Amino acid sequence: MLFTIFGATGDLTTKKLIPALYRLYEEEQLPDPFTIVCIGRRHYETASFVAEIREKIEGEYPHWEAFQGRIHYLTMDFSVEANFEIFKLYVASLNLSQGGQKIYYLATAPHYFPIIARALIVNQMIVRGDMRSKIVFEKPFGEDLDTAKAYNRLLLESIEESQVYRIDHYLGKEMLQNVLTVRFANKIFESIWNHENIENIKIVALESESVKQRGGYYDRSGALKDMVQNHLFQTLALVAMDSPMGLSDTLIKNQKVEVLENLQISDDIVFGQYAGYLQEKGIPVDSKTETFVAIKAYVNTQRWRNTPFYLMTGKKMSHKLAEIIVTFKDASCFFEKGQPEKNTLTIEIFPREGIVLKFNGKAPGLQAYTMPMRLDYCHMCNVVGNSAEAYEKLILDVIHDDSSLFTRWDEIESSWRIIDSINRMKRFEPLHVYQSESEIMQVVDEKWRNA
Amino acid sequence: MLFTIFGATGDLTTKKLIPALYRLYEEEQLPDPFTIVCIGRRHYETASFVAEIREKIEGEYPHWEAFQGRIHYLTMDFSVEANFEIFKLYVASLNLSQGGQKIYYLATAPHYFPIIARALIVNQMIVRGDMRSKIVFEKPFGEDLDTAKAYNRLLLESIEESQVYRIDHYLGKEMLQNVLTVRFANKIFESIWNHENIENIKIVALESESVKQRGGYYDRSGALKDMVQNHLFQTLALVAMDSPMGLSDTLIKNQKVEVLENLQISDDIVFGQYAGYLQEKGIPVDSKTETFVAIKAYVNTQRWRNTPFYLMTGKKMSHKLAEIIVTFKDASCFFEKGQPEKNTLTIEIFPREGIVLKFNGKAPGLQAYTMPMRLDYCHMCNVVGNSAEAYEKLILDVIHDDSSLFTRWDEIESSWRIIDSINRMKRFEPLHVYQSESEIMQVVDEKWRNA
Repeated sequence: MLFTIFGATGDLTTKKLIPALYRLYEEEQLPDPFTIVCIGRRHYETASFVAEIREKIEGEYPHWEAFQGRIHYLTMDFSVEANFEIFKLYVASLNLSQGGQKIYYLATAPHYFPIIARALIVNQMIVRGDMRSKIVFEKPFGEDLDTAKAYNRLLLESIEESQVYRIDHYLGKEMLQNVLTVRFANKIFESIWNHENIENIKIVALESESVKQRGGYYDRSGALKDMVQNHLFQTLALVAMDSPMGLSDTLIKNQKVEVLENLQISDDIVFGQYAGYLQEKGIPVDSKTETFVAIKAYVNTQRWRNTPFYLMTGKKMSHKLAEIIVTFKDASCFFEKGQPEKNTLTIEIFPREGIVLKFNGKAPGLQAYTMPMRLDYCHMCNVVGNSAEAYEKLILDVIHDDSSLFTRWDEIESSWRIIDSINRMKRFEPLHVYQSESEIMQVVDEKWRNA
Repeated sequence: MLFTIFGATGDLTTKKLIPALYRLYEEEQLPDPFTIVCIGRRHYETASFVAEIREKIEGEYPHWEAFQGRIHYLTMDFSVEANFEIFKLYVASLNLSQGGQKIYYLATAPHYFPIIARALIVNQMIVRGDMRSKIVFEKPFGEDLDTAKAYNRLLLESIEESQVYRIDHYLGKEMLQNVLTVRFANKIFESIWNHENIENIKIVALESESVKQRGGYYDRSGALKDMVQNHLFQTLALVAMDSPMGLSDTLIKNQKVEVLENLQISDDIVFGQYAGYLQEKGIPVDSKTETFVAIKAYVNTQRWRNTPFYLMTGKKMSHKLAEIIVTFKDASCFFEKGQPEKNTLTIEIFPREGIVLKFNGKAPGLQAYTMPMRLDYCHMCNVVGNSAEAYEKLILDVIHDDSSLFTRWDEIESSWRIIDSINRMKRFEPLHVYQSESEIMQVVDEKWRNA
C-alpha cells in the first residue's frame, strides 16, 4: 500500500494521521508492505521530518523505530501540476510491489483539492475503475455549492464516486457511530424518537481555542463552513433521519439526505466574532467572518413536525464541549409538589464519551417529592485501552472500501445549498463581537426567547 | 396519642414497629405526648419486655432511654372479648390527655382480627366517625373472600371505612412508591408503557428463609395468601394501572382496582413446597400448603393486550430478592452482527433499591458491534442517612389520616376473588417438592416454554 499525504507539514498529519497510521500498524491492521509518502512545500529531509513528528506527537509508540522506516518525505509544491511528474518518478524509485493499494489523502486547504485531484488524474496515478486507487478529501469539500459542484464534476469526469472518500472525521467518532445504535437497536428510544415525545434537540460543538496559526484558512471559511456544513449537519442528519428499511450504507445515506433536503432554517440566527479575532495573524482588519453561530432549524418531516433543532458552535468558548441533548416533553401528570423536570438524553461526544439519561424518581425519605435522577453510562470507563480515534477507524475503512462513514455527494450538495442560503441571510444580520461564551449565549437566549 | 399494638410479642413488633416508632420519635414526627401500649398473651413486666426488645433490635438508638419510658406492656389474652374491660381500665389508669389520637394496630394472626375489632367497638374504644380513633390491620386481611367480607361487614356496621387502615407494608417501600413516579413523571417511560413496546413484566419476591417459628400461621396461609394476594397483586396493580386523571388517592385506587378486576390468570401455574417443610414445627405431616408459586397472568385492558405478567414468590430460595423487571420488545432494525438484546428496566426493591436500564450501544473499538449497556441509578447511594423504612412511612400516614398507601376494600375484595379462583385450580395441579431454587425454576421454565 502506498499512502500519500498532501499537506503533510500541517497539524492534521502530526496530530491525527501519523498517530492513527501508527496505531493501525501496531494492531496489524495495515496491509503489508506499506509505504507512507508525506508531501509538503516546506523543505525537509525525511530523517528530520520524522524526527520532528516524533517530538511533537503525544502518547506511547513502542514500535516507532520499525514504523518510521516506512515514512518518506518529499518536498514539492503541489499547487503546480507539472511537479506531479516528479512525484510519479519518486514513487517509481520506491520500488513498491505491484498490485498494492494507492491512497491519496488531501490534507490541504480546500482550494488545492481540484489542483491535486486533476494532477493525479492527468498523471494516471488514479485511474477510473481501478478500485485500488482512492482519493480522500479532508473537509470542507468545496467552499460553497458552486465550487463543490465544480470539484465533483472534475472528479466524476475521470474517476468513479466509489473511488472518492469525502472525510468528515466526526462520523468516525465513537459516539457519533453510537447515535444510530442507540436509536435503532433499542425499542425504548426508537418508540419515542419523534415530535410527540421530544420537545427539542440541541447539537453543540464548542471550542475553547482561537484560530491560532490557521487564520489564513479559517477566515475564508468561518464557523459555518468549518463546522456547520459538515460536522453539525452530519450529526443532525444522524439524529433526525427516519428509520431506514435496513442498515445498509445506501439506505442510511438516503435517509440522511432526506433530513438535509427538508431542513428549514429559521430567521433567528445569531452570528458572533470573538473580540481580538481581527488582530489574529492572517486575518484582514475588516473581516466579517463568524467564529460563532447559533441556528434554529426545523426538519419538515412527519416525524419532526414543529420540533426545533438548535445547532451551536463557536471558538473561544469557556471550554471544549461536544454533545447532543434530546429534551423530552413534560409528562402528562401533574405532581403535588410541582411539575417534575423534563427528561433529557445526552449523548456526550467530547470531552467524555457517554450517555446520560435524566429522569424523575421519588426523592428518598418520608415526603412524596419527585427528584431528578441521573442514569449515567460511560462509553470508555470499563474498556481496556483507548477509544479508537476517529481517524484510525476512517483510514481503515478507506483501506477496506467501506464508505459508510464518508459523505456521499448528495449529502454535500444539500448541505452546501443550506449553508449558501444562511450566508445570504448573514448579510442582513448583525455580527456580535463577544468577549466570552456567556456574553454571546445571552444574545442567543434573548433572540430565541423573543422568537 | 395512644398507640396500641396487639400481638406485641411477635417478630413484627420487635423488628419493625418499635424501631419505626423510635425513628419517628427521634425525627420529632410523633404527636407529643404519646404512649405505646404493647399487648401480648405471654407474661412480662414492662421493664423486662422493654429490655428484651432493646436487646433484639439492631441499629443505633441514642435516645432510647427517653423513648422506652413511653412503652407499657399489658399481659392479656385478646382472644377473649371480656378482657377488653381490663384493657379499658388500664388505659384509663395511664391518665392520657383528652383529645389525643387512638391507634390500634393489629399485629396478630388474621383470625384474631374480627375478635379484637369487635371487642374494641363493643367497648367503645373506637367510635364511628371519631376520626381520632383508627384501627390498623396487618395483612392478610381475611383468609379468603368470604372471611374478608365478613370482617369488613363487621367493621363497617360500626365504624367508617376512613377509620380502617389495611396495611400492606410493600406499599410503604421506597421503590414501590417510586413506581408511579417513574411511570407518570417521565415522558420517556409514560409513552412506552404499553403492549406495543413491552414484551412482558416480571414481579419477583423471593425469600431465602424457611417458615421458621411461624409455621402455625404460615400453613393456614401459604405463598398465595402470604405474598401474592397482597404484595404481588399490589405491585402488579401499580405497574399495570392505566394513567389516572390526576394523582389523588381515590383516582389511583380506582385504576388499581381496574387492573385486578381485569386480571386473567392462565392455567400455567406452578406450585411448590420446599423439601423439609413437612418436618417444620407446627406443620401437619400431610400439609399441601405451597411455599412457592409462579403465576402467568394477563391484564385484559387495551394497554396490555396479550402482554404476559409473571408473578413469582417462594421461600428457601438461593437469596432474598424483590424486583420488577420490564422487558421491552425487539427494536425493528436488524443489525449486521445479530439482533441486539432486548431493553429491560429493572426496579430493584430488595436488597438494593435502585433502577437499572439496559440498552444497546456500539461496542467501543473499530468494529461495528452492538453491546448491552447498563444505566444504573442507586436510590440511596447519594443520600445521607437511611432509606425510610416502610413501616415508618406507613405509621406516619396513619397519624396524618393519609390512606393512600393502604388498601381500599374493593382492592382487597378483587384480590381475594382471584386468590380463591387460583386455590380452586390448585386442587388439580401437582405440588412440586423442591430442594433448591434452580430445581423449582426448571419446572417453571418447562411449563411456560410449553404453554
